[in-house]
Amino acid sequence: MTAGDNPMRVVLIGAGNVATHLGKALQDAGCLVVQVYSRTAQSASELAATLSTGYTTEVEDIRKDADVYIVALKDTALQALAPDLVRGREDALFVHTAGSIPMTLWEGLLPRYGVLYPMQTFSKQRPVDFHTVPFFIEASGEEEWQILRELAGRLSPLVYRADSEQRKYLHLAAVFACNFANHMYALSAQILAGQGIPFEVMLPLVDETAQKVHRLSPVQAQTGPAVRQDVNVMDRHLELLADEPALRELYEKISKSIYNRKQP
Amino acid sequence: MTAGDNPMRVVLIGAGNVATHLGKALQDAGCLVVQVYSRTAQSASELAATLSTGYTTEVEDIRKDADVYIVALKDTALQALAPDLVRGREDALFVHTAGSIPMTLWEGLLPRYGVLYPMQTFSKQRPVDFHTVPFFIEASGEEEWQILRELAGRLSPLVYRADSEQRKYLHLAAVFACNFANHMYALSAQILAGQGIPFEVMLPLVDETAQKVHRLSPVQAQTGPAVRQDVNVMDRHLELLADEPALRELYEKISKSIYNRKQP
Repeated sequence: MTAGDNPMRVVLIGAGNVATHLGKALQDAGCLVVQVYSRTAQSASELAATLSTGYTTEVEDIRKDADVYIVALKDTALQALAPDLVRGREDALFVHTAGSIPMTLWEGLLPRYGVLYPMQTFSKQRPVDFHTVPFFIEASGEEEWQILRELAGRLSPLVYRADSEQRKYLHLAAVFACNFANHMYALSAQILAGQGIPFEVMLPLVDETAQKVHRLSPVQAQTGPAVRQDVNVMDRHLELLADEPALRELYEKISKSIYNRKQP
Repeated sequence: MTAGDNPMRVVLIGAGNVATHLGKALQDAGCLVVQVYSRTAQSASELAATLSTGYTTEVEDIRKDADVYIVALKDTALQALAPDLVRGREDALFVHTAGSIPMTLWEGLLPRYGVLYPMQTFSKQRPVDFHTVPFFIEASGEEEWQILRELAGRLSPLVYRADSEQRKYLHLAAVFACNFANHMYALSAQILAGQGIPFEVMLPLVDETAQKVHRLSPVQAQTGPAVRQDVNVMDRHLELLADEPALRELYEKISKSIYNRKQP
């Protein structure tokens, strides 16, 4: 990524999972991460060391000479900090990575802004292959859109345009397909742990469940007692959960939801 | 699989997804499926044609000369039919495939019986690679255990011993990790469809979510607003679900369950 003949100069605002993975990938793609900002010195210094760059914990010490500021903060911090981040840096392009925050966050603060939403689940302990991560982009204008498309295109072939309204729903849909699906694994692991069985035995089923929806719609792929309305099996399962009222309630409500959405 | 020098002769009771996939795999593994039984003529004849074997829709016409009878029926049918299935075939080995039904189903009906539980999600439209399917086996005696271990071992390297109590919990855990996880995909697809976005964009995230739990425990792998207790994001998501009270309730209860189980 170049501006003229020079590599694109990026400041990363945030040093959490998204900033960490994105920072490494941007650097691998030829961008220059010139600084990391985080309120927490340890996170900032760790990520800066990984990227061999500088860091600051003070908003006023954030450099003013970068081309793009990528803001990957928790949503509340993002909204609280945006005006301070922009001040004195109004010529740059500011983007945030949070799927659920509308682009209007930047309106009136500076002329060039956008959203760069990588729809993936980022954990510190696990490397991310950005080539399979879809990026959803929104921009204040055509020029900004081109810059962000080129930036994202360096990381992934899956670059889409999505406005703030679509992105809100994308983010909500991602919570179901990723965060909530993962929690179903967690509840499964808890049930197995009660019997001394490692979650490992479940992995072939976890994988096949994910693979199936590459070929079938999730509704077509649905199996199990709820979609068959096999009341005997469900009753026995509910008995096993007698000491876990919260789990029992989830079992009942999800089963009902499955049945209500079964294929005609 | 041989009994003496002859291939093992198997009758399949049932012609649903499990019977279909298991029948094909057994035949590929050198077993002889000598007959298919199903109450429904169409299912029975279709599976019999696939396996180039005979079929019947009458319990009294089920052959009496097989070595193993594999019963892959819906749980209610299995319990209702077991005594009739066994009658006149008391010298054979009877096994059922339903994870949630205890082995005691066969007690008093005949001397040799067991359970052969392939823990996988079977859909008619999709081939199954049995080499990745874990089989959980229980048997009335050591001889039956050896036979079932050899039978399952022809299909998969993942053969485990599990008693009826463990299997009940395995089945319940599988409902969470597979059926309920898949329903989270279905709800995600529904949310996307409302915006005209194909579920396809979610597949990299679905895959990564499944892959992550190969390396991290599901609780370690948990990401998203619920585990961060990001109340602003969750409130905005609940607003998006204002017209979907059942979905809204699921969102709230699953988020609460995630937060209650977060890593210390």
